[in-house]
Parts: sequence; structure tokens; C-alpha cells
Amino acid sequence: MSVRKKQARAPEESQFPNADFERIFHPESIAILGVSADENAAGFGTGMLRVLMEMGFEGKIYPVNPRGGSVFGLEIYRRVEDIPDRVDFAVIAVAAKLVPPALEACLKIGVAGAEILSSGFSELVTKEGVQLENQIREIASRGIRVVGPNCFGIYCPRSGLTMLPGPDLSRESGNVAFLAQSGGMAIDFAHAGQWRGVRFSKMVSFGNGADLREAELLCHLAGDPETEVISMYIEGIKDGDVFFRELKAAAARKPVIIFKGGLSKAGARSVASHTASMGGSGVIWSSVLKQTGAVQVFDTQELMQAVTAFSLLPKKSFRNIAVIGGGGAIGVAACDIAERHGIDIPPLSGDIRERIESLLPRPGSSAINPVDVANPLVAPSVLKKVLLNAAQDPRIELQIIVSLLFHYNPYAIMLDVPIDKMVPYKELVEAVDDVINKTGKPVVAVLPNARRGPGNMDITSLIASTRQEYVRRGIPVFDELHEAIRAIAHMNTYYGRRENEKR
Amino acid sequence: MSVRKKQARAPEESQFPNADFERIFHPESIAILGVSADENAAGFGTGMLRVLMEMGFEGKIYPVNPRGGSVFGLEIYRRVEDIPDRVDFAVIAVAAKLVPPALEACLKIGVAGAEILSSGFSELVTKEGVQLENQIREIASRGIRVVGPNCFGIYCPRSGLTMLPGPDLSRESGNVAFLAQSGGMAIDFAHAGQWRGVRFSKMVSFGNGADLREAELLCHLAGDPETEVISMYIEGIKDGDVFFRELKAAAARKPVIIFKGGLSKAGARSVASHTASMGGSGVIWSSVLKQTGAVQVFDTQELMQAVTAFSLLPKKSFRNIAVIGGGGAIGVAACDIAERHGIDIPPLSGDIRERIESLLPRPGSSAINPVDVANPLVAPSVLKKVLLNAAQDPRIELQIIVSLLFHYNPYAIMLDVPIDKMVPYKELVEAVDDVINKTGKPVVAVLPNARRGPGNMDITSLIASTRQEYVRRGIPVFDELHEAIRAIAHMNTYYGRRENEKR
Repeated sequence: MSVRKKQARAPEESQFPNADFERIFHPESIAILGVSADENAAGFGTGMLRVLMEMGFEGKIYPVNPRGGSVFGLEIYRRVEDIPDRVDFAVIAVAAKLVPPALEACLKIGVAGAEILSSGFSELVTKEGVQLENQIREIASRGIRVVGPNCFGIYCPRSGLTMLPGPDLSRESGNVAFLAQSGGMAIDFAHAGQWRGVRFSKMVSFGNGADLREAELLCHLAGDPETEVISMYIEGIKDGDVFFRELKAAAARKPVIIFKGGLSKAGARSVASHTASMGGSGVIWSSVLKQTGAVQVFDTQELMQAVTAFSLLPKKSFRNIAVIGGGGAIGVAACDIAERHGIDIPPLSGDIRERIESLLPRPGSSAINPVDVANPLVAPSVLKKVLLNAAQDPRIELQIIVSLLFHYNPYAIMLDVPIDKMVPYKELVEAVDDVINKTGKPVVAVLPNARRGPGNMDITSLIASTRQEYVRRGIPVFDELHEAIRAIAHMNTYYGRRENEKR
Repeated sequence: MSVRKKQARAPEESQFPNADFERIFHPESIAILGVSADENAAGFGTGMLRVLMEMGFEGKIYPVNPRGGSVFGLEIYRRVEDIPDRVDFAVIAVAAKLVPPALEACLKIGVAGAEILSSGFSELVTKEGVQLENQIREIASRGIRVVGPNCFGIYCPRSGLTMLPGPDLSRESGNVAFLAQSGGMAIDFAHAGQWRGVRFSKMVSFGNGADLREAELLCHLAGDPETEVISMYIEGIKDGDVFFRELKAAAARKPVIIFKGGLSKAGARSVASHTASMGGSGVIWSSVLKQTGAVQVFDTQELMQAVTAFSLLPKKSFRNIAVIGGGGAIGVAACDIAERHGIDIPPLSGDIRERIESLLPRPGSSAINPVDVANPLVAPSVLKKVLLNAAQDPRIELQIIVSLLFHYNPYAIMLDVPIDKMVPYKELVEAVDDVINKTGKPVVAVLPNARRGPGNMDITSLIASTRQEYVRRGIPVFDELHEAIRAIAHMNTYYGRRENEKR
């Protein structure tokens, strides 16, 4: 981190106050205000110090507490002014009423940005809370940018910035950014991304959003070369016009996927007590989001599934797909789901169909598309040939392979072999990977699990390992077929619009 | 099984041919046609013999094969006519063209019913296949009832009848029946039921449905005292008028939940190749199902989730609920989902709210409803008090508790304690169970898991164990909040209609 990349400021950022996002997301030095000398203290400050060290943050860390002392071998400075170094970023975790002077001190020594983990501000809907937050805003306006208060702050794998309680977030950087007011949502999203193969460029939980919030962060991410997909959970927004303008500008450059919570009346009420911002009706949001070109989703799972597809698949639409699986009901379900989402599963051309038929066990199989391989135990080498053949149909743009691996279980029991030794899951993933490389057409994997009791942890573990093999190779995996197809449909919505505009 | 319960034949069954369902579902003796003398043979007949023995089927089993011999210590009879006993039920697993004579022989010795596992009939859409199936139908009409062909047959935990490849299906009998053409779907449904606490009275996969099929089975289940909830997966039906009449009659007596596959054009095409029956448009099906009073769902997961609620919750609607969880975004999501499904999450009355507020950590919590306990690590003893208080609001008919147990992980790592030793999951389930018993109001548990990588099998295992504790006490558990609320909404659709009719 010795050479700092100087990023040119995008022209559209000029409407927002000055912000040195490079120093904020990739600081070389951090001050943490509110660290206890007791290493086992439960406070956010000590917790953050601990997790930054565990994450292997490469920069300097300066704990601050008026009582001084030392912790984890680091000197605790009594005042930020005493720190003998330039400080890029500050983590503020002191009691609400002590936050304004702490922030003021950070401003004074030239800190570029601060995340305020403390709560006790406008979300309390008390006069004192609102006043304290106004003070924060005023200090921020004089030159230090603020994330929060009432937030979990920034997670940035490249620099090692992390959120509480996150000693176990990935250090691998990726192409997805995530913005949310909710810190809990952010941390869960980071973890869900981890086992799905989604890696993040930046994640910001901005809580009450007193200073930095959705519109400006969107604007920054739209110009951020590390970010290819922007995902957001919004409860309410404070400045609608600016937000929708930035959203439209961002969505014109890269996919923006939004889950808007609090669309119901009771939801809006709940938003008010959670992050003190305004909600809005579902119809208005849907129509406005559509106009901006952003993709709307309706829960966090759907958000993560869409992000998985956008992050890992080629940047285009997929109108015609092939579905390969064992068990006829999968084929029927595939057709129903695909039609619901405007995706076609066209019958394969006659000669391809004949070649696939010759590969499959009879009776019970079907080579039309969906291809029903009749039996969940068909060997990966055969599945590979089926996929290679189906890809030869010029209409097919993407293939989905559904593997019911838990169906090996009764045979594993009968043969008294551990299921992970019996299922050729590595060969399966290798076969799929080969098909992708040879055909240039993406394959999406679906790994349902009907066997999830505590007595079947071996199956659950097998499926997790199989998923991990796919994830390692950058192949998207879903639990259920309808999740995969819906995620692809979101890509079609986004890229279909762009492809139409180009015509 | 020595005393056979004589069941009176329900009057409405008289329109259908004679069937001794007691001998079919709870046979005292079974013939299996198509068993090899080789114990490791891969055929369905030998497989069925093996799994019936493993399931502990209490009746007599008579393997049949023209070559004779013995297998697993049992004599193989050359002809069913040689079996020195009355045979209640037959499993036929011989090549398609040998099925009609085999069935004829079973009829001759007075077998009450037979399941034909063999495929190679009308589903092939060949003249020969259709003719063979017509022969089966003709033989059946002379007094032996047939399940199949091209099916996995019957699973009946009470008698130990099971489907292939099912040595590991539960022997615990329950209140849910399941009907499907698809055998693969049936076996997956049986397994999914197992880890969700859903137990089955009877499950029938009837494949091509040459003789016994949906309408008559529905009629039987409507009168079956062991069955309280009927669930079905249908691809197509052969006799629409009879089916809808029986469906209406059954739904008037107990909940019937239907997942109709093949509603799309491509889906209907896929149905044709899978079970050789006719589909139908989505709009028609939805409107007809609504008229019958059956509940329609749109995928197998939704079906299983609905069945879980119908099977385990009191038989009524739940219009007003309380939601308790940690992390504000859960509350917002709860409101949005509930409103979408016509369920209210009313603000708790002032005094109850104050009592709950006094129990919760501040700031960050909210006692309005949804109750945000602010922190996923709140102790079960506190959660219990929250639930007991919320239940005192007379409007609240049901409570949902959302536990993000994976949030214990960073603390388990920091304290170097195995997560299952750290999380008080048994205490949590006990607390919930106590609340249900004390308040008389049901509680539904939601156990999401954002941590499902192969490196987090300890978390997955902890959640499976927690789920099992709930399941053991008959408390419904869901993975996601929206699944729980949608399932409850299905109960409201069904019982709301009945409650309105009573007014």
C-alpha cells in the first residue's frame, strides 16, 4: 500500500462536496476512537481494533482513549491530536454526546473520513438525538466525510477495512459493491456472498446517512473501476431527486440492483424507527425504479441471487436456455418457471436431440429440452457430452444443470460408502467447467437439497463442497431452479434494455 | 398387524370401482414380481425387497421369479400362484411386455392391489406402449386395483411400505397425505418432510395412472381418518370433471394443497413426455382451483412449506401476528411481506410495549411490533418474556420468532468455543415451547443461515440441530421469514373461507 493510486475525480461527482474516497476506502492509517485498554472489552472500538488486526489490515492503527494506556501491544493515544502521523480514516465508537467533539478533532488533524458506529442520534426521534446528528452534519460540511452514525461502516477487502462483528469476512476483492443503511443486512450479505462466490469491491453500511449516503456513494461507485455491479438495500431516502438522477446515471454505466424495504404501511412505520428516513409506496417505487433502468428485487435472497448472476455471468441477456437434469418433474418445473420469466427453453434441433438420446438411459429420459437424463446418477462424462451437444444448437445461449446429489444417499447407505466418496462431484464440476471453456456458453449449476436433517449432515456437507468447487471456478450455483431462472431474468431485464437501445 | 381394522366404505366412494384400500396401504403380505436371486442385482424388484426389509415391513414378503432360487434367506417362488398364503398387495417390476400376464396372475390369486414400477407404457407415446397400458386397465377393471405403471408406488409409514430408493424414509406416521404422478417428486417430498417435522399418513406416486389416480385417491383420502391434510403435485389429469368434483368434496372436509406443474406451453409439452397426460392453461387452473376451495401453490418448496404450516399449526386462520427478531431490517421485511399476504402486524398496545421495552437493550431496539430485540445474542430467558408479553395483546393470534444464530459465530471464534456449545439453542427452543403451552398461541420459528460455506459446516449443523429441537416438539420451522408468512397466508386462504361460511 506504499504507492497510492491517484484517481481522477469523475466530472459528475463535482455536485457533491469534496471526498477523497481513496483515503476513505483504502486508508494507510486509521484512528479508532473509543478503544478500551481492556482487551476483552465489549465495546465497538475495541472490537473493531481486534477485527482489523485479525483481518490483517496492512496500514497503521492508532487506538485513542482519554485514559491512555496500551492494548494488544499498541499505545493508546489520549487525543487524536497526539497521533504522530497523518491519519486517513477514523472509526468513532464513543458515546453519542462525545461524537461531535471527537469528529471535530479528526477534522482538525486532516482525517479524510470517519465512520461513526455509535447510535443515539436521529433514529431515536428525540430532540437531543436530532441535534447531535445536525452537529455531525455541520462538522462534516467543513471537510471530513462521515459514514453513519448508527452504522457498521465500511467493508473493503482490498484494504482490510471490515465491519463488526467481522473477523471472518473475505479479503478477496471482487466486482460487486453493496450499499445499505442496515449494518446487520450488510454483514449477512457479505457472508452470503462468500459461500456463493460473490466478491466485493466495497460495502458501505451508512446507517442514518447524516453525510455520505446513497446518492453520492452511487455516484462514486458508478465511476469506480473496481465495481462492475452495484447492489443496494434501501429503506428510505432523504433526497429523492438527487438519488434518482444518480441512480439513472449509474444504471446507464453498470447494473444497479435494488431491494427497497418498507414498501408497506407497517414497513414504513418500522423503517422510521430503524433508520429515521422516509419510505414510499410500492407502486411509486416500482415505476420510478423502472424509469431509472435499475433492477428491482423483493428480498435479500433474491438480491443475492441476482448479484450472483450479474457478477459471474457474461454481461448480456440470455433469452434461450437449455435445462439438463434428472427426474422429469424438473423439466416441467423449468418450463413453467422460464415462461413466467419470459425465457424460452426451445426444443433442441432434431440431429442434436438424436445424439443426446443415444447417450441417455432408456426409458424415462427425454432429449427435447429440458433434457431429462432420467436418473440422478448419470456419470459426469455422459452429462458433459449432453451439455456439449446441447450447446451446439445455435439458439442456446446458456445452460442450466440441475444435480440432485442427495439421491446418491440410498446407494451410499447400501454400499456402506461415505457419500462424499461415492458422488463424483469434482468430476461433475470439472466436466461443467470444460463445457464452458469449450463452448464459450455459460453453464449455471443448481444443487437442491431435500435432505437437511441433523442425521444428513454428510449430504449437506457434500453439497457445500460441490458448491465450493463450482464457486472456485467462478461458476454460479443456486439452491433451486426457480432462483437461477429468476436471477437470469433480471439480467435479461437489464441487458435486454441496453441491447434494445443499441439497435 | 394381526387385527385388521375394517373400514366402512364412505358413500361417495361408491361411484368408483371396488377397492380394499386397507389391504393396499397396510398389506399383511406382499408378492414382489421380478426379484433376482442375486442380492446385488440393480433391478427394481430386488431393490424393493431390500428396502422393505430395511424399513422393517412387518408382513410376509414373497419374492417371485420364474427362475426360482432364494434371496436374503427367502424362497423365490416361480409363480405367484405357488405362494402358499393370501397375498394382499403385489409389487410388479418385470419388463413392460411381461406386466399384463403378471397382473393377470395376481388378479387370479385375489391380490387386492398392485403397484407397477416398470416403465415402457403410454409415456413412450408408442402404439405398443399404449396397448400394453390398455391391457393393464382392462385387467384392473376385473378386480385388482393398480398403482402405476411408470411409478415409484406407495409409501405408508404405518405399514412399512416404501418407495424406491427409500430405505431411509421415516416409519413415523402422520397427518399428511401426498399424491403425485412423479415418483422422484414423491421421494424428495418424503425426505423434505422428514427434516421439517412433517409426517405422512400415505404417499402415492401413481405415474401414468392407468387405474387408480388423483380423483379416486382424493376421494379415499378425504374419508381417511389418518389424513388431515392432503397435498398433491399434478402434471395433468385424465378426467377433469370427476377430479374437480372430488377435489371440491375433499376440500370441504380438509385442506387440499395443490402444486400444478406444466402450466406453461413448454411445460405442457414436457408433461406429455413425462407422464402422458394433458396439462392446461394457468389461468384456467387457478380459477378452477379457487372454485373448489383447494389451495394452489407454485413450486415444491412452497408446497412443503404450506404443508408444514397446515400439518403443525392449529386449524384456523391467523390474521394478526407478532414478529420478534434481532436486527431492524427483519422488522421492515416482515411488514412488507405480511402486507403482501394480507396479514397484519399490529402495533402492540401501549402497556405491553412498555413492558417489552424495559426488557430490551437500548438503543437499537423497538417494541412496537415487529419487536426488534436489537441484537441477535439476546438470551432465551429474555426472548421468552418478550413472547409472553406480546401474546397478552388479545389481537395477536400467532407469533414468529426469527433467530439469526449464525451471528454467534464471530464471538465463538473470538472466545475459541465451538459454536454449538456457545449458542443456547436448546434453551431457546424450550423457551418457545413454554410460551406456546402457557399462552395457547402458536409460535413459528425462522432460522435463516447466511453462513453456508464448507468452512462453516459447524454453523449449518448447529442450525440443523436447532431445527430438529423445534421439530421434535412439533413447532414449525422455516428457513426464511417470507416462507413462513406465505405458508400462514395459505392457511388464511383456506380457513378464512370456511370461517366466513360459518358466519
